Amino acid sequence: MGNVGAGVFKHLTQNRALLRERLGYELEVKRIAVRDLAKARGVSVSGELLTTRWEDLLDDPAIQIVVELMGQKDESLRLILGAIERGKIVVTGNKALLAEHGREIFEAATKYKVPVFFEAAVAGGIPIIKSIREAFIGNHIRSIHGIINGTSNYILTQMCERGIGFTEALAEAQAAGYAEADPALDVNGGDAAHKAIILASLAYGFWVPGDKIHVEGIEHITAHDICFARKLGYTIKLLGIIKADASGEIEVRVHPTLIPEKHVLASVNGVFNALAVHGDIVGDTLFYGRGAGQDPTSSSVIADLAEAAAALQSPRSNYGFMPHGLYGTCKPIAEIVSEYYLRLTVEDRPGVIAQVAGVLGGLNIGISSIFQPESSEGEPVSLILVIHKATNAQIASALEKIGALPCVKKTPRMIRVENFA
Amino acid sequence: MGNVGAGVFKHLTQNRALLRERLGYELEVKRIAVRDLAKARGVSVSGELLTTRWEDLLDDPAIQIVVELMGQKDESLRLILGAIERGKIVVTGNKALLAEHGREIFEAATKYKVPVFFEAAVAGGIPIIKSIREAFIGNHIRSIHGIINGTSNYILTQMCERGIGFTEALAEAQAAGYAEADPALDVNGGDAAHKAIILASLAYGFWVPGDKIHVEGIEHITAHDICFARKLGYTIKLLGIIKADASGEIEVRVHPTLIPEKHVLASVNGVFNALAVHGDIVGDTLFYGRGAGQDPTSSSVIADLAEAAAALQSPRSNYGFMPHGLYGTCKPIAEIVSEYYLRLTVEDRPGVIAQVAGVLGGLNIGISSIFQPESSEGEPVSLILVIHKATNAQIASALEKIGALPCVKKTPRMIRVENFA
Repeated sequence: MGNVGAGVFKHLTQNRALLRERLGYELEVKRIAVRDLAKARGVSVSGELLTTRWEDLLDDPAIQIVVELMGQKDESLRLILGAIERGKIVVTGNKALLAEHGREIFEAATKYKVPVFFEAAVAGGIPIIKSIREAFIGNHIRSIHGIINGTSNYILTQMCERGIGFTEALAEAQAAGYAEADPALDVNGGDAAHKAIILASLAYGFWVPGDKIHVEGIEHITAHDICFARKLGYTIKLLGIIKADASGEIEVRVHPTLIPEKHVLASVNGVFNALAVHGDIVGDTLFYGRGAGQDPTSSSVIADLAEAAAALQSPRSNYGFMPHGLYGTCKPIAEIVSEYYLRLTVEDRPGVIAQVAGVLGGLNIGISSIFQPESSEGEPVSLILVIHKATNAQIASALEKIGALPCVKKTPRMIRVENFA
Repeated sequence: MGNVGAGVFKHLTQNRALLRERLGYELEVKRIAVRDLAKARGVSVSGELLTTRWEDLLDDPAIQIVVELMGQKDESLRLILGAIERGKIVVTGNKALLAEHGREIFEAATKYKVPVFFEAAVAGGIPIIKSIREAFIGNHIRSIHGIINGTSNYILTQMCERGIGFTEALAEAQAAGYAEADPALDVNGGDAAHKAIILASLAYGFWVPGDKIHVEGIEHITAHDICFARKLGYTIKLLGIIKADASGEIEVRVHPTLIPEKHVLASVNGVFNALAVHGDIVGDTLFYGRGAGQDPTSSSVIADLAEAAAALQSPRSNYGFMPHGLYGTCKPIAEIVSEYYLRLTVEDRPGVIAQVAGVLGGLNIGISSIFQPESSEGEPVSLILVIHKATNAQIASALEKIGALPCVKKTPRMIRVENFA
């Protein structure tokens, strides 16, 4: 009964009549495991429901559904596996745990024929799990592009709208309660990577190992990058990208990305999340909403509870993870082809562009455009290049060579570009 | 087996392996009713499957699910009711039929305990039915604002992006295949009204009679309106609006609407549909995708088929329409409070604004802003007013009085404004 748990309890109570009308029966909270019996939780809950031993929930045969919102690793895993072994349906929002132990959890779920629901694990109140798994069941998922970390999106939006730097925007996000005291997992892409793994498992039927995913955060994005991107007609978002290519290999990666200002994802601002899903039948779709917070996440947990209750009445043969074996290989980042924005800091003198272009030409990398923003004379200046179609390996090699040029004064910065072609 | 039926058949065939993996069993097409056995349909289908008598589908006890994609009225209703009476699950995309006969169809469905699925009836490939009904089951739906007619949205987008008039944009939409030869139902709001009725039934648990809904189309929107709206920071969209107020009365209406350019719905362009759904727990959400066409609509029909197949295996107690009786009154348009944009054509001389403002003041209607676009001297000129908070009855009365002023040269135009406050 932390933040989300208290929200679920509150809304189950407040919307009890509505749920009873819609479901045809009541959901009753039988027991709540907490660390501290005395802690204030902002909801009125009878002391009799509380226990400090989560094992009590497993031991009570009257409990049919266990909602795991502890957000722990070992304890959460033991609770979930214990519930499955006892035939109790599981609802969880634990993205880190699913990303790391999803395989084990769903193998147990299959073995014991117990459904596991996890809508709250990705994008808070947005029904993206249900949509991919059920609404798009007839589709090969060609790609998912997701803004799936609200903190990063809030920071990038502030940088973009007000021209402030990353450090200042992060401090504001913390003051506004949108970033944790330790914001590392939000801004370094780690949280988005957990969600990307879950989305990939739904779309492609296997659990991508965490170390196969390329993850970059937004720490190195500058106000200049955002300004130059805008001049090129782009905005910068932290995206989780999940894609299949024609050969059946899949890409899973998380990094800051230049996306066209006209794309619907570009208008997703502040703490909101959104996922653009492209299916071979349905074409382009987008889902938008609050990706975190007590209330939106509670909405998803309650939807899963309703599913769980229906599953108790009439079990189905297929729930949760659906391994279909059509794909299974995750492409290394080095082989992935992308477009790129490069920002170099170079000496302000003739001949520099020729040297940089020479390096790229030597590596067989075509340049799509070059521009040099105005600056005060004599100072090192920015040089912006846009590259169409190169592998990440090619670009890594180019950046190394360009960084070694005497006319290049700082480590070159690279941000990938996605044109949704 | 018209356009959508052929698409469903095509994709069931093409994605057969994927569906089998995900479902755990195969969907087999047993019989297809057509008008003309000889017609080319763009898909390879065995002649043995075809019949010109849809009654054959009802008479075959091996058929467990009937997909109604005839788009007729009487015949479709007889097919659907006949299937329900025989215990066959129904999948339909027939929005006009549901809007008119939904009550009858779902009463039969309840009586015979047969589920009826209809994802394809609203917004093509967007899983809005499933999302409202299942994902937001714990939410009181506070409002739905939908761009739910792609033809109208295409026309408005063309008018907005290129400054052309309604007639020209409509002709282009027809040439591009986005509008029917008879585009009336698309541009006059009738099609959107059918979808609004279905959405209202899901959100509020009762079937709103068609004659209780206020419906206006986009025929009277001019390039000038779009230009003036932009100066005010708005864009114009045809919206279906479904809302509940605190007293439990609901509003269902379809009309062109000025919405803030910064709102995500404003960036929904071309033939795309989108629905902004606000739930009391989940907050603001948005669903975006293709609202019509063979492929997107097939995606939804196939999802319903998968649900239907699961329901055959394990029937649930609650399907389809869920009357919960919490609401039930539809507010007349006259009583609905809105904001308004008024465009008057007036004589270009001092004193005109005073006269118009006098009429509004006399009716107790406050003016939020007034502006007069530049024009050639001596000609009648446009006068734009924005009104905050008045009932539709008040505005109707004001428009009548203003229209009768000698200084007003044409019928005043009014478009409602929605600020999503």
